[in-house]
Amino acid sequence: MSKPVIGLLGGGQLGRMLCEAAGPLGISVAVLDEENCPSKQANQNPLHVTGSFKDPEKIKQLAARCDVLTVEIEHVETTILEEIATKGVEVPTADGKGTTLKKVPVHPSWKTIRLIQDKYQQKEYFAKQGIPVAEQVAIAEGSERLSSLRAAGDKFGYPFMLKGAKGSYDGRGNYKIDGPSDLETASNQMGDQPLYAEKWVPFDMELAVMVMRTEDADGNFKAVHPYPVVETIHEDSICTKVFYPPRKVSEDIKKQAQKIASDVIASLWGRGVFAVEMFLTKDGRILVNEVAPRPHNSGHYTIEAVPQMSQYKAQLYSILDLIPSRGISLIPRVPSAIMLNILGGAKETSHDRFVELAEASSDDYTDIYVHLYGKVSKPSRKIGHITATGFSSVDQLATTISPLIQCMDEIRLERIGSSEKATPATTSSKPPPLVAVTMGSDSDLGVMSAGLKILDDFSVPYEVRITSAHRTPHLMMKFAAEMSASTCKVIIAGAGGAAHLPGMLASETHLPVIGVPVKASVLDGVDSLYSIVQMPRGIPCATMGIGNSTNAALLAVRILGTTFPEYADRMKAYQEKMANEVFAKDEKLREGGWQKYVEGMQKK
Amino acid sequence: MSKPVIGLLGGGQLGRMLCEAAGPLGISVAVLDEENCPSKQANQNPLHVTGSFKDPEKIKQLAARCDVLTVEIEHVETTILEEIATKGVEVPTADGKGTTLKKVPVHPSWKTIRLIQDKYQQKEYFAKQGIPVAEQVAIAEGSERLSSLRAAGDKFGYPFMLKGAKGSYDGRGNYKIDGPSDLETASNQMGDQPLYAEKWVPFDMELAVMVMRTEDADGNFKAVHPYPVVETIHEDSICTKVFYPPRKVSEDIKKQAQKIASDVIASLWGRGVFAVEMFLTKDGRILVNEVAPRPHNSGHYTIEAVPQMSQYKAQLYSILDLIPSRGISLIPRVPSAIMLNILGGAKETSHDRFVELAEASSDDYTDIYVHLYGKVSKPSRKIGHITATGFSSVDQLATTISPLIQCMDEIRLERIGSSEKATPATTSSKPPPLVAVTMGSDSDLGVMSAGLKILDDFSVPYEVRITSAHRTPHLMMKFAAEMSASTCKVIIAGAGGAAHLPGMLASETHLPVIGVPVKASVLDGVDSLYSIVQMPRGIPCATMGIGNSTNAALLAVRILGTTFPEYADRMKAYQEKMANEVFAKDEKLREGGWQKYVEGMQKK
Repeated sequence: MSKPVIGLLGGGQLGRMLCEAAGPLGISVAVLDEENCPSKQANQNPLHVTGSFKDPEKIKQLAARCDVLTVEIEHVETTILEEIATKGVEVPTADGKGTTLKKVPVHPSWKTIRLIQDKYQQKEYFAKQGIPVAEQVAIAEGSERLSSLRAAGDKFGYPFMLKGAKGSYDGRGNYKIDGPSDLETASNQMGDQPLYAEKWVPFDMELAVMVMRTEDADGNFKAVHPYPVVETIHEDSICTKVFYPPRKVSEDIKKQAQKIASDVIASLWGRGVFAVEMFLTKDGRILVNEVAPRPHNSGHYTIEAVPQMSQYKAQLYSILDLIPSRGISLIPRVPSAIMLNILGGAKETSHDRFVELAEASSDDYTDIYVHLYGKVSKPSRKIGHITATGFSSVDQLATTISPLIQCMDEIRLERIGSSEKATPATTSSKPPPLVAVTMGSDSDLGVMSAGLKILDDFSVPYEVRITSAHRTPHLMMKFAAEMSASTCKVIIAGAGGAAHLPGMLASETHLPVIGVPVKASVLDGVDSLYSIVQMPRGIPCATMGIGNSTNAALLAVRILGTTFPEYADRMKAYQEKMANEVFAKDEKLREGGWQKYVEGMQKK
Repeated sequence: MSKPVIGLLGGGQLGRMLCEAAGPLGISVAVLDEENCPSKQANQNPLHVTGSFKDPEKIKQLAARCDVLTVEIEHVETTILEEIATKGVEVPTADGKGTTLKKVPVHPSWKTIRLIQDKYQQKEYFAKQGIPVAEQVAIAEGSERLSSLRAAGDKFGYPFMLKGAKGSYDGRGNYKIDGPSDLETASNQMGDQPLYAEKWVPFDMELAVMVMRTEDADGNFKAVHPYPVVETIHEDSICTKVFYPPRKVSEDIKKQAQKIASDVIASLWGRGVFAVEMFLTKDGRILVNEVAPRPHNSGHYTIEAVPQMSQYKAQLYSILDLIPSRGISLIPRVPSAIMLNILGGAKETSHDRFVELAEASSDDYTDIYVHLYGKVSKPSRKIGHITATGFSSVDQLATTISPLIQCMDEIRLERIGSSEKATPATTSSKPPPLVAVTMGSDSDLGVMSAGLKILDDFSVPYEVRITSAHRTPHLMMKFAAEMSASTCKVIIAGAGGAAHLPGMLASETHLPVIGVPVKASVLDGVDSLYSIVQMPRGIPCATMGIGNSTNAALLAVRILGTTFPEYADRMKAYQEKMANEVFAKDEKLREGGWQKYVEGMQKK
């Protein structure tokens, strides 16, 4: 059984990664682009067409060879795509004697591509669908342009953004108007293209969500499937970094972003994956900035983070309607990922040192994946990317790969001829903490040190702090919040007397908390035990025996073992060693007799 | 910076997957094989050579274009490889006026390939290195063959294995001699090749370990890096299934297998990855069966299970000496994986239904990855494979994908014309348990049911059992061992009085155990609490408040949240909901006054 042949307009890196995903799935992708373009390098196919993806004749030639068309770039001629989809393209008849018209579906629909090509119309449409977007106004053309620009300045105030409606790729064709004196220069620099003005949006962060859109065989909308939201960083109007999950963004905002992105894409036409780029404004609102009707830079991280259904696989699965009725899982298989673009530097070889560093930067806690696109390096050209995946938080991952981030920042500063210095890389290679140990007072340290010793023995990276529920309640809460958002997986807390610390920490975190009752001056520790163990329903605290921080640490190791097999293995070895020690003692007792054994003990 | 160009002899599926790994890394692989071979489909390269990888002239042509040669099949002419590596291959001089000799290194070394081509000599060599192998004896050629065969039968008894020394790929050229009457037929069937006889090895299981071997720039041995051991299943002398980790194999055997495999590969020459196939005999010994000096079917699972360094990436990294000095991690990123080969069936389309089923079989607990090789299907030809990865045990994964296993078994039975029936697929799609709940007596069920309700609310898959530490100590131990080896990540145990169950379970498992003290008839539960919480140092038991199974379940959810983010998310939502309930009550109290509030409570 051979699957439908996909014709792809454009053979850049997005097409290349689409071909890399298609190969193992047995899906044939025929590419229209130059002979040695990135996509064709990864996919030898007799159906390829050589030429420009803007050439109507070549597009027809490709369509004639394929069962469905798609794009890796939205700047394509949609009239020809409409014609191919609705009227058809000439193909030879079965008897070879004449020609007939074959309709070739286009996904996403030419309607979607056409709408998106005009960024002003795109957002006008979204606004009508109730999607939150920044306020905008079209700028008149010709002799009225300058007065129209002034009117925009009056309406929005300064600064505002002037944008080319058909402006392209990576934000080229945007101009920030700081005051009325900028208007003429801006108008000249933007040239003769249709323009629109957009109200200045002070934003905290840019977010993006990839969304998969499916349709049934009759072209009826089936479903939208959003990927998780990511944080995108743009420098020099080019996306340079992507963080999954976004840093310091609440669950609520994440859900909102996924919902808005899903609504946006549901309002469009055709199958495929789409990128929805958004602003998170300083006042906590989400505004849709623009949509890309194709796989996108902000979705590269899915190759490794959502390996079961990367954005490229999703593009193939949705276009070919291969999504099983039971649905698909777009849940990342790693807790954090960071994508860094490899942009060409000042020299053709500037990025080499970055690639070498990336190849050597994986460790037991971090996997680094290099993707080069087979393109010649030019300044600021996207020639590759790396994705780092970690087992811990995205903040920790960012710290771990800071030498890579610094290296890419340096290459950028060289390129733009800046004398700035890149933020120095963190030199510490200390692994991220997996356990946090805290106690109400330094007087508990005597009891707690046995547990810390165990964590050392098991090579568990941990952090120790003094935080008192009664003397420093705010610090304690801050500590709990920090640990909840960190790489930390278990909190151990020791406290005595009216021992509130473990229970209060449990109230402030979703992590498992282990409590160690420390014997205070009276009541022999029973007060501490009861204070820790008798938590109300709803907030569990794993309570240890009085003074038994050893067991607290061992329980933490057991919990880590449920995630990391190496800790489970070490726990098994530890238990075996304990058994062997008892066997040895038993042997000694049997051989030497109990009297000699007691004498030996007394000598110690 | 361009990396050295790798010349590859052979363009089958192993080469294809090597090319798939090389592309994103920016490594150029030039393939010597036919025009549309699987490797070239995934890699368009002007340096490719069209022809047979057995043709010395073509090999020289390839070598002239490359910086290093490697193979994806060991049945290549080693004299020509030796010549290229030691004397060199003619290439034009820089001025284009003459020719000069260029030495091209071959990895793994031609010496290794030559040794391995002769399976008899290979094992003689291993035996001399102290590697455990099955007893073998060379069979004389020509007129003495039959008497030599008889002598082998006398030496080893029957059955024994007759093997072609230069016998090839996938066990073709093996003959089981059941008795003296088989000798003549076997000799005729094996034809005119050099033969050897091998003592019959009754084995329990076949194991395999991939090993990466590195050398420094001067060709001195640097290190061997073993992957984990896997279980391989052969049917009709073809590898059909691979299980990671191997089922029911002790840690000790796994370590031995990795050690032996490392020793074997350390004894060879050159860089690259190697497969070591082994028998685990019925009496618990490991015998090396054979070595493949290249990526191998038993290592396909690494593409998804060890994504940071699949066997293909390892082949590239070792050949190009890219391994960082800090080392590499070959630890799988998933707890279990199963590889199923897609073998051509009776008809060219027989396997289509398997591929369709595989494409639709992923779920939240299981990822299925399809790899098709771009080959035309022929009966029993390897035309693709799938790898399933799971979050649970390999046994559970095997159950989950049993419809796929059954489908492939059916295709095989059709192909071999058997009237047998494939083992029916398990229809249950119940998710694997993550929590085990147990109690000493059914009288504890009242207390424990609140916790079970919580597990239901959080959609935690669990198992409930009654096991008493005192009345059924052996059952309790068996239960602990079963849970330790299962998908289960936490055990909750409730017990009252001299409550030994939680602590005894903790002694029998490496998993975290949560104890719920159940109030017995006297002492108000304090006896139960002390019995559970005051565990000796070494064996932790996470103790809850008396009768508080709710918190036990909530702690289990928190622990699961350290592995599975969705449980952490649900826990955060639960804590928010609890807070909101209190806020609402406070609101009601403030608004209506305390008197009305109390009245409302009394009415309930």
